Amino acid sequence: MGRRSKRRFSVPLPEYGSLREVMVDHGLAALGDAYVNFLYSLYLSRRNGRPLGSKVSGSTLAKALKRAGLRGFLPSRTDRHKQADAAEALIAYAWIMGVTSTEEAISTLEGEETLEEAFAALLKMIQERVQRIL
Amino acid sequence: MGRRSKRRFSVPLPEYGSLREVMVDHGLAALGDAYVNFLYSLYLSRRNGRPLGSKVSGSTLAKALKRAGLRGFLPSRTDRHKQADAAEALIAYAWIMGVTSTEEAISTLEGEETLEEAFAALLKMIQERVQRIL
Repeated sequence: MGRRSKRRFSVPLPEYGSLREVMVDHGLAALGDAYVNFLYSLYLSRRNGRPLGSKVSGSTLAKALKRAGLRGFLPSRTDRHKQADAAEALIAYAWIMGVTSTEEAISTLEGEETLEEAFAALLKMIQERVQRIL
Repeated sequence: MGRRSKRRFSVPLPEYGSLREVMVDHGLAALGDAYVNFLYSLYLSRRNGRPLGSKVSGSTLAKALKRAGLRGFLPSRTDRHKQADAAEALIAYAWIMGVTSTEEAISTLEGEETLEEAFAALLKMIQERVQRIL
């Protein structure tokens, strides 16, 4: 386990031993679902010049996970729904651990053309940083 | 309009002239819906000692708005759904304006017994601070 001194928020987490353990935590995925929708709503608000709320589809997150090269960390029979859960769990984990800030996550999304590419870029960045602390 | 120097995040907002104008902004309520669910998921995670996600019911938020003494800022025929929207809009506005942090919002929720009382306490705190900048 890596150092946790950068943690921005006291959310109790189990001791994950690998990226895959983070990706298959259902509770973390549920928390991540809420965080990802908030993140996406902020992204949309900035893009449209006014406050807005919306949800990212599971299909977009599953495709983003694959594009980021993270699909291989999950068992081969994992369905799309669980792939999207894995993306949400990773994004929540990175936020809780202080590996990414909300502001930086949105800037990363803004640097890409499509939503799938945007979340793939965010997941790739998170993977690189999370692997240093796991 | 008050000073905006404390704004933590560059979300484009219209120039609201009153608390009521904030409370009836549908887009802000949609963004607030995402933020409130995230906040509630963090609160639940801390309470249960593990990551979790969930949603706050509109009914709880509408009752909290009334308990906080904020119902009177809305037209008398406003239905429960729009009352919940008003609570969500206020909570999002306070976060965007830097009037409350996520950490402080959760500590405030944690200080109360029921969920309705918890959100009422948060809304009351937000009202007092937002009225200073509007």
